Amino acid sequence: MSIWKEDTLLAREVTVNLGPRSYPICIGDALLPETGWLVSHVRLTGRVMVVTNPTVGKLYGEVVRGSLEKAGFTVVWAEIPDGEEFKTLDTASLLYDTAFQNNLDRWSAVIALGGGVVGDVAGFVAATYMRGVPFIQVPTTLLAQVDSSVGGKVAVNHPKGKNIIGAFYQPRLVIADTGTLKSLPPRELKAGMAEVIKYGVIKDAAFFSWLEKNLDRVLALDNAALQQVVEVSCRIKAEVVEADETEQGMRQILNFGHTVGHALESLTNYEVYRHGEAVAIGMVAAARIAVAMGLLPAEEFERLRNLVVRCGLPEAVPDGIDPKLLWTYLHCDKKARGRKVVFVLPRAIGQVIVCDNVVPEVFKQVVR
Amino acid sequence: MSIWKEDTLLAREVTVNLGPRSYPICIGDALLPETGWLVSHVRLTGRVMVVTNPTVGKLYGEVVRGSLEKAGFTVVWAEIPDGEEFKTLDTASLLYDTAFQNNLDRWSAVIALGGGVVGDVAGFVAATYMRGVPFIQVPTTLLAQVDSSVGGKVAVNHPKGKNIIGAFYQPRLVIADTGTLKSLPPRELKAGMAEVIKYGVIKDAAFFSWLEKNLDRVLALDNAALQQVVEVSCRIKAEVVEADETEQGMRQILNFGHTVGHALESLTNYEVYRHGEAVAIGMVAAARIAVAMGLLPAEEFERLRNLVVRCGLPEAVPDGIDPKLLWTYLHCDKKARGRKVVFVLPRAIGQVIVCDNVVPEVFKQVVR
Repeated sequence: MSIWKEDTLLAREVTVNLGPRSYPICIGDALLPETGWLVSHVRLTGRVMVVTNPTVGKLYGEVVRGSLEKAGFTVVWAEIPDGEEFKTLDTASLLYDTAFQNNLDRWSAVIALGGGVVGDVAGFVAATYMRGVPFIQVPTTLLAQVDSSVGGKVAVNHPKGKNIIGAFYQPRLVIADTGTLKSLPPRELKAGMAEVIKYGVIKDAAFFSWLEKNLDRVLALDNAALQQVVEVSCRIKAEVVEADETEQGMRQILNFGHTVGHALESLTNYEVYRHGEAVAIGMVAAARIAVAMGLLPAEEFERLRNLVVRCGLPEAVPDGIDPKLLWTYLHCDKKARGRKVVFVLPRAIGQVIVCDNVVPEVFKQVVR
Repeated sequence: MSIWKEDTLLAREVTVNLGPRSYPICIGDALLPETGWLVSHVRLTGRVMVVTNPTVGKLYGEVVRGSLEKAGFTVVWAEIPDGEEFKTLDTASLLYDTAFQNNLDRWSAVIALGGGVVGDVAGFVAATYMRGVPFIQVPTTLLAQVDSSVGGKVAVNHPKGKNIIGAFYQPRLVIADTGTLKSLPPRELKAGMAEVIKYGVIKDAAFFSWLEKNLDRVLALDNAALQQVVEVSCRIKAEVVEADETEQGMRQILNFGHTVGHALESLTNYEVYRHGEAVAIGMVAAARIAVAMGLLPAEEFERLRNLVVRCGLPEAVPDGIDPKLLWTYLHCDKKARGRKVVFVLPRAIGQVIVCDNVVPEVFKQVVR
């Protein structure tokens, strides 16, 4: 699907089909100046609150605000500090204050302009302010464009664990301007690629092959290649979310690489790895386990590892990490508490299974 | 519908039909000892967190905990202070801590045992802990049994306004034990009756007539009469909620009496009136407006006023309140902000319309 403004092709469109909660994801390389036009086309009017951080606000605040005002919106601006440590109930509370003081009502939209932290906090506030107001995602990182802005997971952290306080709350619209990726630090771009590779492994062998062929174009920020990456990633995520909106089953496959990834992030206090880097290590670890269990041919494993390495992503659990300790950390994930640890294991590029009987011996041997 | 345990009729049942979010309301006069049995019959197991307050905990804690443990549940007990002023994000935050420290996971239920405050806070926590866990309402006040426990509105207050932070989140089960109403202070019982009368006015003339005939039995806490009141009230509320789960339109009729009621509560700092008392005054005011606008025959108005008075509820805005000030307060409601004030006006007992063109002159004349 495509979105035209007069006779200009503005954006590619991926629809997330969730009945009354369906919404479009617009993908293009110059969409920020059209924010107001796009938002008014999902039939919103009046007051909007833009939530961003100082870094993103400095880069894109003027163009987004101008575009919204030009389209007739009254814009309330709210900046939250940059960083995962501010993804808290306290930050949400300040945003409720701003919303209330500026007379946002049930029909006013909250617009998240930024990466995953901004999207998660702003989304949580949208989900809970006045029992839910319209929510729009304008992701400006690769990770947010291909993953966190799609699918309706919103949350803040609890002092003891990530994303403990949250909701499933779908946006009305996602505006993914791939032009913003050009201002992204290279390390962030690479980290985002881990989730992109993930989509190929869990559901789309052809996309994985395309990535093998086109990775250099992607990393060189070629416009068409970036849009292709975002479009296919969003389409795959949309398919999975459509089948299982609230993670009762199938949606688990999106956690490929995340079982070990989350444990590794947690064990290193979220200070060593970007989320995508930990996921990259986790994907390679899961694939190694699959090989050790006779599920995955070694050559398929090598394809995955090669692509991870070509992205400049880490592929191994570092020597300093005790496999036994990592194994115990696997059991602290909020999805695992008191239950068996669930791994998503590849059987081939493009196909995964959910497995809860990985034995510690295999895990430790593979991780070492 | 009825619920049988072996050969004993345990409860009447009203179903709230909301597709995948449908749930039963069980109504009976000795249900608390069956809490565990009922909870296990909606296919929950494992850990549950009971949220209550010290007053209710003292009265019913032992029987509820015992019943849950007998049915095999591991019970985490959480008491929050009694009173609307504790319906805050801070209280919710303490409940997240308790839940997390006690290893509640995505499959663990939160059970609200108490009145509206307990139900609203516990429901908000259930809606947002781990992106939503099963929620069960065990209302112990008449107001909660006929109104706040049904329909999925959960919330905490913002320092500047009530219920500003919340969600629509349906419970899995409501257990309304009318036996608990016998320990209720008489003023609370009467306050609850305002919402009961409301249901008759907005949707059920026959129920209103039944109330006229049977009010003395209800106020004398006759078992059968109380169950009838709760069952019919829940059935009417269920019908309205089924038609409009998230208050896009029709659900507004539940706000009959609440336009003036909320303003009056707010203007008196929530210190003078119980919610039901303010609603009673609001219903009589709305009916007066309807008479003044030629919508409602005077004799129908008198029937409403009589029933309100017979319940021992206030019927008039007190002399000390300036009608002009009350009119400005009408515009501060979270549903009204920056929009026209919406009144729900009766055209007859059993029939209301939604009206946004009440002029201030009529309002002030009627309220004076």
